[in-house]
Amino acid sequence: MAVGSTYKVVELVGSSSANIQEAVDGAIARAAQTIRNLDWFEVKEIRGTIADGKANWYQVKVGVGFRVDGGEDIRED
Amino acid sequence: MAVGSTYKVVELVGSSSANIQEAVDGAIARAAQTIRNLDWFEVKEIRGTIADGKANWYQVKVGVGFRVDGGEDIRED
Amino acid sequence: MAVGSTYKVVELVGSSSANIQEAVDGAIARAAQTIRNLDWFEVKEIRGTIADGKANWYQVKVGVGFRVDGGEDIRED
Amino acid sequence: MAVGSTYKVVELVGSSSANIQEAVDGAIARAAQTIRNLDWFEVKEIRGTIADGKANWYQVKVGVGFRVDGGEDIRED
Amino acid sequence: MAVGSTYKVVELVGSSSANIQEAVDGAIARAAQTIRNLDWFEVKEIRGTIADGKANWYQVKVGVGFRVDGGEDIRED
Amino acid sequence: MAVGSTYKVVELVGSSSANIQEAVDGAIARAAQTIRNLDWFEVKEIRGTIADGKANWYQVKVGVGFRVDGGEDIRED
Amino acid sequence: MAVGSTYKVVELVGSSSANIQEAVDGAIARAAQTIRNLDWFEVKEIRGTIADGKANWYQVKVGVGFRVDGGEDIRED
Amino acid sequence: MAVGSTYKVVELVGSSSANIQEAVDGAIARAAQTIRNLDWFEVKEIRGTIADGKANWYQVKVGVGFRVDGGEDIRED
Amino acid sequence: MAVGSTYKVVELVGSSSANIQEAVDGAIARAAQTIRNLDWFEVKEIRGTIADGKANWYQVKVGVGFRVDGGEDIRED
Amino acid sequence: MAVGSTYKVVELVGSSSANIQEAVDGAIARAAQTIRNLDWFEVKEIRGTIADGKANWYQVKVGVGFRVDGGEDIRED
Amino acid sequence: MAVGSTYKVVELVGSSSANIQEAVDGAIARAAQTIRNLDWFEVKEIRGTIADGKANWYQVKVGVGFRVDGGEDIRED
Amino acid sequence: MAVGSTYKVVELVGSSSANIQEAVDGAIARAAQTIRNLDWFEVKEIRGTIADGKANWYQVKVGVGFRVDGGEDIRED
Repeated sequence: MAVGSTYKVVELVGSSSANIQEAVDGAIARAAQTIRNLDWFEVKEIRGTIADGKANWYQVKVGVGFRVDGGEDIRED
Repeated sequence: MAVGSTYKVVELVGSSSANIQEAVDGAIARAAQTIRNLDWFEVKEIRGTIADGKANWYQVKVGVGFRVDGGEDIRED
Repeated sequence: MAVGSTYKVVELVGSSSANIQEAVDGAIARAAQTIRNLDWFEVKEIRGTIADGKANWYQVKVGVGFRVDGGEDIRED
Repeated sequence: MAVGSTYKVVELVGSSSANIQEAVDGAIARAAQTIRNLDWFEVKEIRGTIADGKANWYQVKVGVGFRVDGGEDIRED
Repeated sequence: MAVGSTYKVVELVGSSSANIQEAVDGAIARAAQTIRNLDWFEVKEIRGTIADGKANWYQVKVGVGFRVDGGEDIRED
Repeated sequence: MAVGSTYKVVELVGSSSANIQEAVDGAIARAAQTIRNLDWFEVKEIRGTIADGKANWYQVKVGVGFRVDGGEDIRED
Repeated sequence: MAVGSTYKVVELVGSSSANIQEAVDGAIARAAQTIRNLDWFEVKEIRGTIADGKANWYQVKVGVGFRVDGGEDIRED
Repeated sequence: MAVGSTYKVVELVGSSSANIQEAVDGAIARAAQTIRNLDWFEVKEIRGTIADGKANWYQVKVGVGFRVDGGEDIRED
Repeated sequence: MAVGSTYKVVELVGSSSANIQEAVDGAIARAAQTIRNLDWFEVKEIRGTIADGKANWYQVKVGVGFRVDGGEDIRED
Repeated sequence: MAVGSTYKVVELVGSSSANIQEAVDGAIARAAQTIRNLDWFEVKEIRGTIADGKANWYQVKVGVGFRVDGGEDIRED
Repeated sequence: MAVGSTYKVVELVGSSSANIQEAVDGAIARAAQTIRNLDWFEVKEIRGTIADGKANWYQVKVGVGFRVDGGEDIRED
Repeated sequence: MAVGSTYKVVELVGSSSANIQEAVDGAIARAAQTIRNLDWFEVKEIRGTIADGKANWYQVKVGVGFRVDGGEDIRED
């Protein structure tokens, strides 16, 4: 069949008090708690908040893609 | 712990026959009906339809962010 | 009432081994399996994978908009 | 027939000394003076001039779309 | 003379119930009805409307360029 | 002389609990407190925070341009 | 009255065999042949063609804005 | 080892007198003549030339990615 | 009062010979030496210089936002 | 030490009645009047005003970067 | 045959101590030393370095396109 | 002589199973195997693949610039 899988992309913002890398990984880990078939991610925005003269939260917006081939309600993904 | 909250961003389009401001507020109000922990919004696109020589619907695309720290199914957010 | 319908946009990636057009249509067809009131779509990205010197999967990222006026849980859309 | 209507988009900048909303509406109203079949608009840029410490002109660039199916000279639209 | 031809770009949206390709071609064909010296086109946006769970209109925004060297009123192009 | 005035653009974020328009105006008013020769503004980003299911702060990022022809220290503008 | 002038922006591509500057000026000069009330321009794209190992045509896409307050047919501008 | 493969992306423009799809495929086929390990492609721009009132060449700019792990001269890829 | 705080955003480029993360933090730390009320940051560009076959300076452009509500000269921020 | 210099970028608009090149140079020259350690520039926008059918002011927005390592008040740069 | 020529685009940065125009031309001239069938160019970025209070190098990033129909190794272009 | 060096930019995607930083460095290291005169890099895109609920490959698209002043075949770089 010519038509293949369909994927869905959800936009998450992970946060970390340590660094940018951990904020990315945190968003993916959170997605993995309830989404099966996670396939890829894309970093869209890196920002954060500052307190006491240094970054206290790194916040990274991440698009996370996963396969939705089954008959599950796509509204829910 | 270094990893902090994760947020999700959903994309809504609010509409109003009155003006741009009300279309933004309408999208947020609709989000608030079923989403807890709403945190921020970002206006992404302002457009609309024209009838009888004036705008009859202002349509504003808004990203709405909210915290998803609990164990709820993130596919659903 | 001045405030009108609210719409939600979900981001899907359709895929096809045949061509770009079919990948777009596949994403919309998949959305239609579980989402009512589908209203419009926007093509955001066209890419794919290559094997044996030709495209084996065309992958098209599509934003799909639909009306969410009812009281249903908007987190799920 | 598979081919449907063609639309044209013209770019206008509306201005108002009162606010952004009125600048948008002014551009659409001006378009409506001489263009039939106006269909939609898109806000592209919001800027303005400042005098005496406040905005004296709000200027909003708006794309205005209209149907051009008839045989009229499209160069003129 | 060092200064060469001047070209004008008009923005059209072609539509087709069949596919994206035909929407592009329809916009160019419509332009050709009243504009001479058409030279090039650029696809700017691919979107459309959905009805009954599938795309019923593909809408493609196309910039169409043409030479305006003569003394004709450029406002009209 | 062929070289004319030089302008500087500073980036401000105005905020309002009422609406987008007032956030724009607030940023310009604040700029006017200490900057002479304000000339134009450009809206760059519209966002805000949500509390109790509605926007509690509209935040608009605005570029504000002003003439810096005198010998004043441009680092300070 | 709070609503002020409306402006229209047309997109032209000027060309020159000499340099980029002359291509910009050529587009504006061509616009001035038939458009009154020219007000501003914006350079959108700089490109060109190459022959015999050097640029033979510099082509600059320029948006040209002009006031359209009168009752003239805006379709023609 | 934590460091994995490196890929290179080259930018090609495929052309076809028939349609957009064939222009994409043509670029990939040409790449496959001399590049091994082709992995993915990204469509970056769709444009073309017009003659006799219709598109005579569809031109699609495509980024084509391939693995370059071996010791081959990367300048050549 | 409906009008709230105004913030200013300054653009800094931090640099580090070690990694991207440290370049971000360095820009924020430098800002904190002379700016009070630092509130947030946005990463805008990641680049750097190469020497001896590896990155010797990572350079990250960062927008840093801070509150300017007091009567201080905003030109100076 | 791994952390290196910090740079600041200010946004200026140079203007010239002669050409684009001179507007760029004018912005840099103005910056040099009061800023030490100027390091690089980036052209961000080329536009201008039209009078009597030709450009009377070329206006070029330029980002100008300079080193701010010393203890000087960064708010002022 | 429907499939036409394939083109390749390489990205060069030309530099000049004199002006922007010469930096563009220098990049094209360098390309012409070893590439046949050069066809078009696109200016992508204008920047440079500053010394002694004025631009000492103008640096212009230029995409240069050329035909690659023959059987030559496309990796090398 | 006013015309200075010409640089070429090639686009690479580095990958690492460990983190984003290492993917950037890996792309530069691979470039350094066969390209002399490497000068700067620009991070263009950060993405990756997910397996078992976490990122298994971080993939960073990097533009790498190097001087090409000699008479070497620029097609090969």
